[in-house]
Amino acid sequence: MSVTAPKGFVAAGIACGIKPSGAADLALVATDDARAVAAAAVFTSNGAAAAPVMVSRRHLSSTGGRAAAVVLNSGNANAATGQTGIDHSSRTCALVAAELGCATAEVLVCSTGLIGIPLPFAPIEAGVGRLVAARAPGEGGALAARAIMTTDTRPKETVQRAGAVTVGGMAKGAAMLAPNMATMLAVLTTDADVAAPQLRAWLTAAVQDSFNTLSVDGCTSTNDTVIVLANGRAGAPDPVAFGEALAAACLDLATQMAGDAEGATKVIRVRVTGAADDADAARAARKVAESQLVKCSFYGEDPYWGRIVSELGSSGSAFDLDRVSVSYGGVTVARGGETCAHDVDAVRAHLTGREIDVEADLGLGTGVGSILTNDLTHAYIDENMRTS
Amino acid sequence: MSVTAPKGFVAAGIACGIKPSGAADLALVATDDARAVAAAAVFTSNGAAAAPVMVSRRHLSSTGGRAAAVVLNSGNANAATGQTGIDHSSRTCALVAAELGCATAEVLVCSTGLIGIPLPFAPIEAGVGRLVAARAPGEGGALAARAIMTTDTRPKETVQRAGAVTVGGMAKGAAMLAPNMATMLAVLTTDADVAAPQLRAWLTAAVQDSFNTLSVDGCTSTNDTVIVLANGRAGAPDPVAFGEALAAACLDLATQMAGDAEGATKVIRVRVTGAADDADAARAARKVAESQLVKCSFYGEDPYWGRIVSELGSSGSAFDLDRVSVSYGGVTVARGGETCAHDVDAVRAHLTGREIDVEADLGLGTGVGSILTNDLTHAYIDENMRTS
Repeated sequence: MSVTAPKGFVAAGIACGIKPSGAADLALVATDDARAVAAAAVFTSNGAAAAPVMVSRRHLSSTGGRAAAVVLNSGNANAATGQTGIDHSSRTCALVAAELGCATAEVLVCSTGLIGIPLPFAPIEAGVGRLVAARAPGEGGALAARAIMTTDTRPKETVQRAGAVTVGGMAKGAAMLAPNMATMLAVLTTDADVAAPQLRAWLTAAVQDSFNTLSVDGCTSTNDTVIVLANGRAGAPDPVAFGEALAAACLDLATQMAGDAEGATKVIRVRVTGAADDADAARAARKVAESQLVKCSFYGEDPYWGRIVSELGSSGSAFDLDRVSVSYGGVTVARGGETCAHDVDAVRAHLTGREIDVEADLGLGTGVGSILTNDLTHAYIDENMRTS
Repeated sequence: MSVTAPKGFVAAGIACGIKPSGAADLALVATDDARAVAAAAVFTSNGAAAAPVMVSRRHLSSTGGRAAAVVLNSGNANAATGQTGIDHSSRTCALVAAELGCATAEVLVCSTGLIGIPLPFAPIEAGVGRLVAARAPGEGGALAARAIMTTDTRPKETVQRAGAVTVGGMAKGAAMLAPNMATMLAVLTTDADVAAPQLRAWLTAAVQDSFNTLSVDGCTSTNDTVIVLANGRAGAPDPVAFGEALAAACLDLATQMAGDAEGATKVIRVRVTGAADDADAARAARKVAESQLVKCSFYGEDPYWGRIVSELGSSGSAFDLDRVSVSYGGVTVARGGETCAHDVDAVRAHLTGREIDVEADLGLGTGVGSILTNDLTHAYIDENMRTS
């Protein structure tokens, strides 16, 4: 259970024929009575935003933050597809609305897959009736989570509790991942009673500390979307506990994405401390995490901290080499900007693990920030060198 | 002939024992009479600048832009090596100065190799006498160009003429290449009679249009240095012709570096036109050129223009998807932000070549910019995943 864990939500996932493989490719998350509830979303900052992003943005704005359903397809991003693409996204919402018995603007839409290829609309048109009819509580959530997968090897789901209130969520994402916001799709549901503006504020904060601290390859996609629906069935939440549950749900999904990144063999947390301020720390951590050379070193389990220092120095953040320390898994390998005696075997052992912690202390202030990333591997290239 | 092509310069390259392989690792470029001449340099913008960068900067500043020699070692970057590293770079200059009979501040120093490992100084101390004694016109230039190679598979040399005046140059660089300025070492010589301030202005302009339009992997190194020495032996140059010759020398070396990038199978020129201004065009071209996903597509010879549009849209440059066209080798594959009918075979044929031209017209203004880059390959990972 994920998006169907909170009271009053149903979901479905079917194969409608977009993917040539015949795998599931159409998903629905909806309120069980098809009534619109408070909704908020964060969309990609990419100027080449896809048609579904533009349509969802418009719908959410016209309803003042209310939605009854989210329809999602995998297998095609419906991005860089012109006016036809926008028409397709709008018509998808209209079809779902007709089946559910709600207004078109109360349906949000997401797509993920290849960019620039016209969306095969006939399978969607033919499949929506079956999708909506299949909506169900409980296992419907698991089917929806599977139907949004592209190169993901496993579905990503989460359930968090805050007193009587539940937050559920599902997400997909395995590459083109460098949030700003996070390059991925996620739908969250909650039975908490929260007004749309407040929901939007909590979601923005949660995204900032979760999806936006993830960078698989530095590429911000055209289709990034995180949506939350709140139906109020479980009453007003404790504000602090609810904010924490929403943040925990986002972080859980982001961590699952890092763990399933295309071709990756490792998950690396790059943490920068002692920066002049938090913004400097985040910028420096991102520069290290997105470095092709650093990511190759992690793949090779090579403790080459020189590359880390070089990236920190070229990040644009305040920097004084003579104050920098670097550690792997808590073992300091460089201090005062140069190598220092350390337990070489302990570092090597840490680097052979699946989860790697790298910390750089800039020695300048109290700023901290971290980014979750992956190694750059032969398999990543294999996965991305050809689209067909 | 390269740095020894202009009148009055000598050079040498020897193996002194820094590289365990026994390959050449110590180089010298000097005036034939050991007298200081006009000199200018551009150094890395990396905040973790290496010891030789700091020492060369100080020397050039104290002499007011004059130098008699440049000593270069490969096999170790002498970066992130603390005060000891600075002492080593200073002492290297002093040793060369003593042998040549010039002032220590008239010697500039460059290093390239691994970062964070103490420089083996004994081989340099023992080798400088032999290096200086070996200095020679003609073939000395070719030996020097070989002695600065690290993962380069071939030396990079250039000779350009401007009337009676000659510009010669050598460079190394095959990874950690994302100029700002270009991540590499280059030494240029000329027999033109040019004062240091003017030489500096010309060099800065030439670097901007050559090394700074090259990005192999988005990583700006700690040791980037371009130095030019002008001894005036051939008299005052025609200013326009000299500026062009210097720019041509830099561009020739930059192009050779792109052609020898680590593990690369292709050289790709990403050109952006129709941007709001030149800065926007350069930023957008760099975002495309440094995208891991785009670089994987080139390796796979896959005309997936969707990734190009996505990177353009997230570059931060002014962008309107509906106005964007993309072409490969002059064949337009997307127009108005969506796919258009085109000769698929012609595009595939172009992508199988070693040199690929990608052009994106943003349709907004007259800004143009281009970046030279490479594909991201299995061999790049093999080369960079382990340092030993």
